[in-house]
Amino acid sequence: MMELIGTSFIGHQRGSESGQIFQVTNPATGQVLTPSFHGATEQELQKALELAEAAFTPYSLTSPEKRAEFLKAIADNIESLVDEIQPRMTGESALPEPRCRMEAGRTCGQLRLFANLLEEGSWVNARIETALPDREPVPKPDLRSMLRARGPVAVFCASNFPLAFSVAGGDTASALAAGCPVIVRAHCSHPGTAEIVAGAIQQAVISCGLPEGTFSMIFDQGRQLASQLVQSPTIQAVGFTGSRSGGRALMDLAAARPVPIPVFAEMSSINPVFVLPGAMAERGEMIATNLVSSVTLGAGQFCTCPGLVFTGGSDSFNEVLSKGFSEQPAATMLHQGIAKNYQSCLHTLSSQNGVQTLAKTEASGSQGGPAILKATHSEFIANPQLSAEVFGPSSLVIECETGADMLAAAASLEGQLTASVHGTEEEIANATELINILAQKAGRLIINGFPTGVEVCHSMVHGGPYPATSDGASTSVGTASITRFTRAVAWQNFPESSLPDELKSINPKGITRLVNGIYTSAPVS
Amino acid sequence: MMELIGTSFIGHQRGSESGQIFQVTNPATGQVLTPSFHGATEQELQKALELAEAAFTPYSLTSPEKRAEFLKAIADNIESLVDEIQPRMTGESALPEPRCRMEAGRTCGQLRLFANLLEEGSWVNARIETALPDREPVPKPDLRSMLRARGPVAVFCASNFPLAFSVAGGDTASALAAGCPVIVRAHCSHPGTAEIVAGAIQQAVISCGLPEGTFSMIFDQGRQLASQLVQSPTIQAVGFTGSRSGGRALMDLAAARPVPIPVFAEMSSINPVFVLPGAMAERGEMIATNLVSSVTLGAGQFCTCPGLVFTGGSDSFNEVLSKGFSEQPAATMLHQGIAKNYQSCLHTLSSQNGVQTLAKTEASGSQGGPAILKATHSEFIANPQLSAEVFGPSSLVIECETGADMLAAAASLEGQLTASVHGTEEEIANATELINILAQKAGRLIINGFPTGVEVCHSMVHGGPYPATSDGASTSVGTASITRFTRAVAWQNFPESSLPDELKSINPKGITRLVNGIYTSAPVS
Repeated sequence: MMELIGTSFIGHQRGSESGQIFQVTNPATGQVLTPSFHGATEQELQKALELAEAAFTPYSLTSPEKRAEFLKAIADNIESLVDEIQPRMTGESALPEPRCRMEAGRTCGQLRLFANLLEEGSWVNARIETALPDREPVPKPDLRSMLRARGPVAVFCASNFPLAFSVAGGDTASALAAGCPVIVRAHCSHPGTAEIVAGAIQQAVISCGLPEGTFSMIFDQGRQLASQLVQSPTIQAVGFTGSRSGGRALMDLAAARPVPIPVFAEMSSINPVFVLPGAMAERGEMIATNLVSSVTLGAGQFCTCPGLVFTGGSDSFNEVLSKGFSEQPAATMLHQGIAKNYQSCLHTLSSQNGVQTLAKTEASGSQGGPAILKATHSEFIANPQLSAEVFGPSSLVIECETGADMLAAAASLEGQLTASVHGTEEEIANATELINILAQKAGRLIINGFPTGVEVCHSMVHGGPYPATSDGASTSVGTASITRFTRAVAWQNFPESSLPDELKSINPKGITRLVNGIYTSAPVS
Repeated sequence: MMELIGTSFIGHQRGSESGQIFQVTNPATGQVLTPSFHGATEQELQKALELAEAAFTPYSLTSPEKRAEFLKAIADNIESLVDEIQPRMTGESALPEPRCRMEAGRTCGQLRLFANLLEEGSWVNARIETALPDREPVPKPDLRSMLRARGPVAVFCASNFPLAFSVAGGDTASALAAGCPVIVRAHCSHPGTAEIVAGAIQQAVISCGLPEGTFSMIFDQGRQLASQLVQSPTIQAVGFTGSRSGGRALMDLAAARPVPIPVFAEMSSINPVFVLPGAMAERGEMIATNLVSSVTLGAGQFCTCPGLVFTGGSDSFNEVLSKGFSEQPAATMLHQGIAKNYQSCLHTLSSQNGVQTLAKTEASGSQGGPAILKATHSEFIANPQLSAEVFGPSSLVIECETGADMLAAAASLEGQLTASVHGTEEEIANATELINILAQKAGRLIINGFPTGVEVCHSMVHGGPYPATSDGASTSVGTASITRFTRAVAWQNFPESSLPDELKSINPKGITRLVNGIYTSAPVS
């Protein structure tokens, strides 16, 4: 068993114990966990930045196979540590053992998926146009382009996924895959978990013989180091998963730099669910039962938790929901701050005019009690408070009198990660107008399903218009997330030997490229 | 001959004459041109925004074939007006007839290239993963994603390309191709040219039966309407080509919105050229001769004009440059403001410590006199003024004593659109370090060539790190520019009939897609 020491990871080294000290509490027991953690000093952050700067060129020029080996080494190291990670993670987050093990599996699977992507190689979007030296009035040059690493990336860990959206999570995996060194800012509610995972990455950097600055991780309880990190000229992009206020603060800092950089923040979503009348008549109670599971899964602490349900009004649907929610026990949330925020948001919501609480499980301390509330469409349209995110195991049913009400509600929504529609076969075929509105509001549209469960694959879009994400265009889950940390570069009239392998005429890896307008994996003839 | 009336284009209508009046002067003659132009009123801008908002859903859902037909209609209309456009364009910009005709050809070619892209269809980056209902522990859903239009786009026209980067230029063509309605803000130095082109687009909107708000164009001499346009909740992205100060002002406005939006600004670049010793010995005089042509082409008014030349120092090279520049006549610039700014920047540059003017053609009024200057590497490194953009027909030779000096100079550069290296075959093969540095600084790397001449094709990258562009990652020229105006959307568990054609299993258009990790144009079996 590795002993935790509570200091940052600065390249191959560990940080000092001279920074600000903070402690972490087991949310389930209130017990203070050992050791104490030491925030990085400004000098340590500076050192991590210098190392990342120095690492960028050599790391970005490693072969894709080398980076794949590195990602797989990280996955192997994490896998070998799961028995250490799980109890610490449960102690820091109250997430139960099966969830911790599943999240570890997801994290390792994600790292290996990016390794496969690198080994296959076509993700670089290679485009080749060959020269036409005799073209009139001017010759056409040989011009080849592909995606390259942007530069060192700062990653801010999420509170609600101590593994899959944290130290070795999706942002880190995609940035490292792209060829960008990463400096992680650990989340201060699960620093012990972060320390074990950072050790796994540091070991992989060393065993793969990569530049020291490929990876660093700083502890930091306040906001000052975070600001310095985002404002450093070394940092070329930011990945963040967390609150809307936190994400927006980083966006504003990054936009105000002398050289602005992009922030890819995944922030807030209430994930509306629309239940059309035919589906309600056919299987309303089943939908209600599944909705209870989706809302209360992981104490509702998912960015895809469905927080708004639009129906035509159904007593039996509401009864199943009421019964289901009242039977769900209160659950310990990730930390006391989240639980307090949940209770406070829930209180605000339930105090709004016309909002009726159908069922609520009482809870105190770090616990969150599941709750289901109800209001009418006209109250929803009149009061923006009814579409504010309540992060936790609650949902609000909005009863609409007409289909037009549902369309108006959909049109009034802010940007979302997901939107779901339940309908009969015929209803879905005729729901074009609703689906078209939702396609402008959300990153992922779901038919007859629930938004929790975010598949890590090539076609996932875990994104959506602001405030779901900062840029509204990309995904933070799945292989397409790698392009966030790249930029396009073109090579004009280069000799074959000086081109990157992906752009060489012989196409050594046989990747799929766009050659003179045709997608092909053949060499350029 | 169409008579110009000087009012904005608000959907199918023309604006009133009640806005602020401005006039335009022929830079070659000083003559005031008729008619007077009328800035749009706030009400007219509001109307254009409302029309664009209403047009977004129906226009974004038109078939790619319909949008291709529209783009080709615009090209046909412009082509039929070239004999009207050319004299007006020459009158407003002093650009000679052949350049005007070539730029018209480029503009129409660009529109037709996007039409071809839409007809082929694979640009949407369709990704399909089919369901695994029996997977343990949880089933895998059917998940399909592709790029969709972002929303209405504001386009700001460039002064230096009255056609190719203006009303029907690259930003407009790529946004319309993506399915985004466009509101253009005409450049106030060539409003007559803008009016003719806007008429060509308006006609195409009508003849193709597209929603009225698909296209509007406002005249506006000040900054207030421009700010309102960028701040409107309707606008979802901005395209801009122009000065660094103008682009940054738009970036700051867009980032401060309640819902921030991306600005794709192409702003400033000095396009460094490196001449390695072997190439200098072998063909220094030829390189110098070609450099004179590249710098003075179009009175130096290209974003790709090479403003910095790094050499090992060569008297014969400098002599050819001096002779070449002194033989180049002064040329009328686009407008008096640009000419004054050029003279002022050139004066500032030539007054810097250690900067020597090798040759300079005298000029006054709206004319710009070609100039070639020289300084040493140590002066370059010590004084950031030596790497400030001078927009016009001048260049600065920096003499480096060693190869290490060249590397240090390259590393000190800001973001650039292009970087060029001249070397012998052996030098290029050994210039890995220089090329790797430049690949981090520029969007396009050129071997043994000059940066002017931006090919419009699939593989062009006309982009580069800030301040060359705002986002540092994309291109504003070529087919890849379309993705700026899109966002990724995923469809989960949709029935075949409700999916966009591009994602249907039968693959009706036979586009290339990523299906379960394999690139294929086959149907999903």
